[in-house]
Amino acid sequence: MREVRFFYVPDASTVTELPVEEAAHAVKVLRLHQDDEIFLIDGKGIFYKAVVDMANHKHCLYHVVETLPQKKSWRGRIQLAIAPTKHIDRIEWMAEKATEIGFDGLYFLRCDYSERTVIRRDRVEKVVVAAVKQSRKPYMPEIGELMAFGDFIHLPLQGHRFIAHCYDEISKTELYKELDALSPDDDVTVLVGPEGDFSVNEVREAIACGFKPISLGQSRLRTETAGLAAVMMCNLKKQFV
Amino acid sequence: MREVRFFYVPDASTVTELPVEEAAHAVKVLRLHQDDEIFLIDGKGIFYKAVVDMANHKHCLYHVVETLPQKKSWRGRIQLAIAPTKHIDRIEWMAEKATEIGFDGLYFLRCDYSERTVIRRDRVEKVVVAAVKQSRKPYMPEIGELMAFGDFIHLPLQGHRFIAHCYDEISKTELYKELDALSPDDDVTVLVGPEGDFSVNEVREAIACGFKPISLGQSRLRTETAGLAAVMMCNLKKQFV
Repeated sequence: MREVRFFYVPDASTVTELPVEEAAHAVKVLRLHQDDEIFLIDGKGIFYKAVVDMANHKHCLYHVVETLPQKKSWRGRIQLAIAPTKHIDRIEWMAEKATEIGFDGLYFLRCDYSERTVIRRDRVEKVVVAAVKQSRKPYMPEIGELMAFGDFIHLPLQGHRFIAHCYDEISKTELYKELDALSPDDDVTVLVGPEGDFSVNEVREAIACGFKPISLGQSRLRTETAGLAAVMMCNLKKQFV
Repeated sequence: MREVRFFYVPDASTVTELPVEEAAHAVKVLRLHQDDEIFLIDGKGIFYKAVVDMANHKHCLYHVVETLPQKKSWRGRIQLAIAPTKHIDRIEWMAEKATEIGFDGLYFLRCDYSERTVIRRDRVEKVVVAAVKQSRKPYMPEIGELMAFGDFIHLPLQGHRFIAHCYDEISKTELYKELDALSPDDDVTVLVGPEGDFSVNEVREAIACGFKPISLGQSRLRTETAGLAAVMMCNLKKQFV
């Protein structure tokens, strides 16, 4: 049995040629030829079955033979806003895993105790696109630019908003239990801080903006593990309803 | 505030000197001196508060001032047996994250479709020890040697045993739901296959041995992500009871 090949083609419904990078992969690595079958993911909920019309060293033309609308396996939107870690590979790893598990948006925060204040959004997006193809997700998660914490918390976000923190002096509940109280169709946004946590001021500011302070359980988690744990809790509660 | 320093010292109750590698870290990196306070993790459920008596370039002597018995934050044992991935960093990453989340045993399987048939247990253990210290886990997970799949499934394992697989033709239930039916104190062992999955024969053999076939949800997960997802599901159900 030949492995089914998936490509990420945001404009799959209107164009008839793979994007440059996807074409290079299709032709040079997978050695696709005329008449080979491929699948296209548009990242907006539709897979397309297509047939290769022409493949040379730079181009891969196709025509769509079937439109296959897909369903997300979880309900509502799952959004994570996180302070990027000092070592960027840790956040990129998390972006890959959160995509495999299933979520809808990844946003980056610049916080009081941030050890990293720049992030290459294009690199994260590359990792996420690879994971979308590998795990065959019909929807491409939205990837935001790095934003100041104070700006992000004032965005008009739909649904329920949570901020994870580790301070004993600021009361908090368990996200895993909070999720039981929500309708599974509700959108959820969780904020996760940098290695040194959010500052107390940031937590209080977010609470004043309507964010609920939460814990991710009794384990002491690294930033990227906390981010993935939050995504996984949301996905489980919104998948198995 | 000075960061609290944790060291992994399996014989903390009987010896008065840090193991060589821990001593090097204590003295050269953390620059500990006489009278500094340190914490020791014995990996068997006890933390020790200790004070440095002497620190030179090779040795770090201490005396214990307080014995602090700890509780695990989840009930029963959580055990994962997994086929190591071709790229070993993926399995090492998973070992780190599973340790942070919290589990009790990691075992390695040699399967019909395994892409890797050797593993350096000592390297995995190093990663796990670092994560135990970083996430301050009182118990060190057990790390097994690589075993043939057929031998592992015949081990006299306590508790509930599950095998994750992706075959449509072999019926399966959802691990996340199965866990609801168990007593939280019950031990759980989950098997996760290599990149190419277990073979149908392996799945059938495990079922014949009493393993329950399960799915880890609708997402298509890489081996290491599947392993972590299994650990996280078990930990959530056994932590929040």
